[in-house]
Amino acid sequence: MSFSHSTCHSEPFASRHSEHSEESRPFATSQGDRLKNKKLRIIPLGGLGEVGKNMMVLEYADDIVVIDAGLMFPSEEMLGVDLLIPDINYLLQRKQNLRGIIITHGHEDHIGALPYVLSQLNLPIYATKLAGRLISAELKQRGVKGRARINVVHAGSRIRLGNFTVEFFPVCHSIPDSMGLIIHTPVGMVVHSGDFKLDYTPVIGEATDLNQLAWLGRKGVLLLLSDSTYVELSGYTPSEKVVSDTLDHIMMEASGRVIVTTFSSLISRIQQVIDVAAKHGRRVFITGRSMEEIVKVAAEMGYLVIPPDVLCRSDELKHLPHNRVVILTTGSQGEPTSALVRMANRDHRQIQIVPGDTVVMSATPVPGNEALVNKTIDSLFRQGANVIYEKLSQVHVHGHGSQEELKLLFNLVKPKFFVPIHGEYRHLSLHARLTRSLGMPEDNIFVLEDGDILELGQETGRIVGKVPIGNVYVNGLVTGELDSTMLRDRKLLSRDGIVVVTLAIDAQRGKLVGRPCIITRGFVDAGESQTLIEKSQDVVVATLNHDRKHSFGPGRLSQVSNLEAKVRNSLTKFLYEQTHRRPIIIPIIMEV
Amino acid sequence: MSFSHSTCHSEPFASRHSEHSEESRPFATSQGDRLKNKKLRIIPLGGLGEVGKNMMVLEYADDIVVIDAGLMFPSEEMLGVDLLIPDINYLLQRKQNLRGIIITHGHEDHIGALPYVLSQLNLPIYATKLAGRLISAELKQRGVKGRARINVVHAGSRIRLGNFTVEFFPVCHSIPDSMGLIIHTPVGMVVHSGDFKLDYTPVIGEATDLNQLAWLGRKGVLLLLSDSTYVELSGYTPSEKVVSDTLDHIMMEASGRVIVTTFSSLISRIQQVIDVAAKHGRRVFITGRSMEEIVKVAAEMGYLVIPPDVLCRSDELKHLPHNRVVILTTGSQGEPTSALVRMANRDHRQIQIVPGDTVVMSATPVPGNEALVNKTIDSLFRQGANVIYEKLSQVHVHGHGSQEELKLLFNLVKPKFFVPIHGEYRHLSLHARLTRSLGMPEDNIFVLEDGDILELGQETGRIVGKVPIGNVYVNGLVTGELDSTMLRDRKLLSRDGIVVVTLAIDAQRGKLVGRPCIITRGFVDAGESQTLIEKSQDVVVATLNHDRKHSFGPGRLSQVSNLEAKVRNSLTKFLYEQTHRRPIIIPIIMEV
Repeated sequence: MSFSHSTCHSEPFASRHSEHSEESRPFATSQGDRLKNKKLRIIPLGGLGEVGKNMMVLEYADDIVVIDAGLMFPSEEMLGVDLLIPDINYLLQRKQNLRGIIITHGHEDHIGALPYVLSQLNLPIYATKLAGRLISAELKQRGVKGRARINVVHAGSRIRLGNFTVEFFPVCHSIPDSMGLIIHTPVGMVVHSGDFKLDYTPVIGEATDLNQLAWLGRKGVLLLLSDSTYVELSGYTPSEKVVSDTLDHIMMEASGRVIVTTFSSLISRIQQVIDVAAKHGRRVFITGRSMEEIVKVAAEMGYLVIPPDVLCRSDELKHLPHNRVVILTTGSQGEPTSALVRMANRDHRQIQIVPGDTVVMSATPVPGNEALVNKTIDSLFRQGANVIYEKLSQVHVHGHGSQEELKLLFNLVKPKFFVPIHGEYRHLSLHARLTRSLGMPEDNIFVLEDGDILELGQETGRIVGKVPIGNVYVNGLVTGELDSTMLRDRKLLSRDGIVVVTLAIDAQRGKLVGRPCIITRGFVDAGESQTLIEKSQDVVVATLNHDRKHSFGPGRLSQVSNLEAKVRNSLTKFLYEQTHRRPIIIPIIMEV
Repeated sequence: MSFSHSTCHSEPFASRHSEHSEESRPFATSQGDRLKNKKLRIIPLGGLGEVGKNMMVLEYADDIVVIDAGLMFPSEEMLGVDLLIPDINYLLQRKQNLRGIIITHGHEDHIGALPYVLSQLNLPIYATKLAGRLISAELKQRGVKGRARINVVHAGSRIRLGNFTVEFFPVCHSIPDSMGLIIHTPVGMVVHSGDFKLDYTPVIGEATDLNQLAWLGRKGVLLLLSDSTYVELSGYTPSEKVVSDTLDHIMMEASGRVIVTTFSSLISRIQQVIDVAAKHGRRVFITGRSMEEIVKVAAEMGYLVIPPDVLCRSDELKHLPHNRVVILTTGSQGEPTSALVRMANRDHRQIQIVPGDTVVMSATPVPGNEALVNKTIDSLFRQGANVIYEKLSQVHVHGHGSQEELKLLFNLVKPKFFVPIHGEYRHLSLHARLTRSLGMPEDNIFVLEDGDILELGQETGRIVGKVPIGNVYVNGLVTGELDSTMLRDRKLLSRDGIVVVTLAIDAQRGKLVGRPCIITRGFVDAGESQTLIEKSQDVVVATLNHDRKHSFGPGRLSQVSNLEAKVRNSLTKFLYEQTHRRPIIIPIIMEV
């Protein structure tokens, strides 16, 4: 591994950075006097109360720093929505105060909104080497690369941003180069855990530096912001290392090929697959665009160490005996166009599943992907593979700390105030309860939701207001608000379809010209449609005739909208009686 | 409990029913000679390879019996679909051979398709008392009650249906009166497990009769059909009893009200809640339509035993101290209109959540409901409740056997052939593997999918063909096939909406009359739409002008469909450029 920063945290924190130690006691300075009445503001713009699209704002006087800018994938009922991003109106209104965006690590839920943020704000980004590389790739893909100023940081880096100084410390997570943050503010020190677990035997990088955290706790930490993702789980999250043992066992036992899929950002897992394959004399074939790319990039950058002659090309693959092969592939989430799903559907150019193949799903389904993943597993079983997945064997461990780790972090850091971050509301509540059980006073714990404004002084804190936060979605080239008519209409369309009725009316004589034209989409099956449409035409004609007798005639054509409503009402009633469905009905009346 | 049938299975099977013991050795009779070449056919019409809509066909000579007729709830991508039911074409083509439908228990995935089946087939139903009552209710609701002939059976009942004799034996499951089946056929005995677990200390009813199963195994069982739902779990499923201990602890500790939600059909859980509440001197208020109904019905029928003065009315509820109250409610699946969800949203007439309330989610989310359930838990936490759910504490146990129970059943029954039932493909595969690990020969295990025709003789079995099976859905009053244009159109509509362009064309002069009229639904937000629609009108006009120059004029109006295609193409291109969306475009050209 080339990115060892052991010198940065093998020494106690203060001895290295004594020039900054004043910063956590700002009121000793004259600047401190001027700022005496200023408070530190903590404002989550995303990721609290909903998982994903993480974005946290720290504000002091005229300085704002932003932590992370993530995206979130929509749930199925958000029809046609590509993704969700944080509402950055608060930032847009304070452009002159923005000092920079700090990135904790390179996962989509922490960097994915950057293309949208940077197209509206010209802000410097601070990210580690790997995260920076991933950000560049995203920006390039979205055509906003030119605007980005990415500053590469590493563990131990200290960045001065106005009244803030941000320091990075390494944490273990499911992507290399993950960072926690120590933020020195005029009010006190803030520790941000990032996404983390405590892994004493990590496969890549180093264990979370408990010693440094304990040192901070001694000095006095104002606020801890700590990851709540896995607070529901008791005990400790197992080390990434345990997966090696399972893989070792599987590769030893398997009489045929071993096909492994995992998240492409989980580089340590890729390293394990390569190492265990090499140990068993198996060669590794990489397939799937994002997997091929990450292996290339991670090897170039030194995150992956690949022994010579382990990787194999597709022309070599054909000639290897099956018990000498490992295939590392995309598709851990059952993505329909991924390499593994193509194998499962007998649709992969090079690889056909045969009995004797062992497929290892070395990942967990992201919530919402369960059905796709299960379908993939089913198809692989159908092709005769032996599929090993999380429910059956420890082929995956996750990247977030469980209850005991959260307690340990809290006890080392000993903060005055606590804000649980990264989680749906129940996770934040449970994390708050966990710290209460450790003796944290109720009044010093703040369960925030997106938009809440928390103001902290050295001794007291309170929620002083709320920033209005919209549900911002991206659909194609446009962003919008989730509660729009557009999305409500899509919901209606998706349920019972649409019926368009076009009428031509002779404006002079107030008479229908020809038959009404009725077109439907998504309303009825071909089998049901013919007679139903004819009867619907009769209903429309009858409505018009009835209407003409009473209120419709020459000179009254300005009442077209009235007529439209009548056609809509009579058709809605008729179609519901016939089908128990309620399509959207659009009457179009043309005066000719 | 009033429905004890202990006399039916406290004696060994053969001594009670010796008159039938010939049936499992049919070839000793002259009828046997005639039928020598006949095979037993096993045809799953639903529930194998997909969970839900269970239906199994057993066919011998001119006799068909059907086991269960369940429904399945659609996944989110089946837009507007109400539910899915088995394809019964095979049965419709063999009406004269149908002898009856056997129901194993009263869950929706075993009885829910009966209203649709009975509206097409006039067949007697054989079900236990509770299942019969639930079936009647469903048939009444769907208006097909008149056609039903429901015969009530109980453990030990024997029903002769042509060449088949069906006997019922009690199994433990998450609804009372669940049955396994022993089916005597001319080829041999078939054991159908139903949905089951082995609970030695059930809360309602009796433990699965292992002794009887062992006795059958001694006599010789041709085929075992066994529940695969929880084959992924190692070990034993805990007894329903353990939930009592958890509830006891919760009700003792809680300083305020305890609000419990569970499946309304899980009557044993309701019994436990009532018993534990009574023990702690808490009174029980029931809320939510289906919960109120089932408590009434189950108490009337003797499934629930409610001590006097435990239930309380809403006017009493107001005057009770909170630590003397238990509320039993619907909403375990986060159903938007359920009582618990209304409480969570401060929308319940009688009950407002207050800090101090403890909410117990005594159920597991059915796959697909996770997001709704999580949202409900989040809202309850927001209201200040302490929510206890499956991930945090053992407040639920499920109703299916785990690996050790499946092995035990298999070892007692010792069948010649084995067919895993009730499960997606991976469950069936894993169950097959489990029996291989017990020494079952590969050739005697059949992993079937819906439609497969398995033919069994006394010594050999093979899959001889496949019944074509459609994906039948119900939407409103109509049933149809899942791969219809209607559902494909709904998918498109839900993604990017629809654009309707209406043009009036002067047939004489071949000229556009007025501006094209453009109406959209679900395509763009109000903010984006105005100028986009004006530009779209220009695009249509330009297309027509261009077209008129080249090919459009008087006498060529028969080429309307050609013109429509041109308008559709140019608009599709333009709108994609502007928005990166692809709405359905419907051009309507009226000649005037």
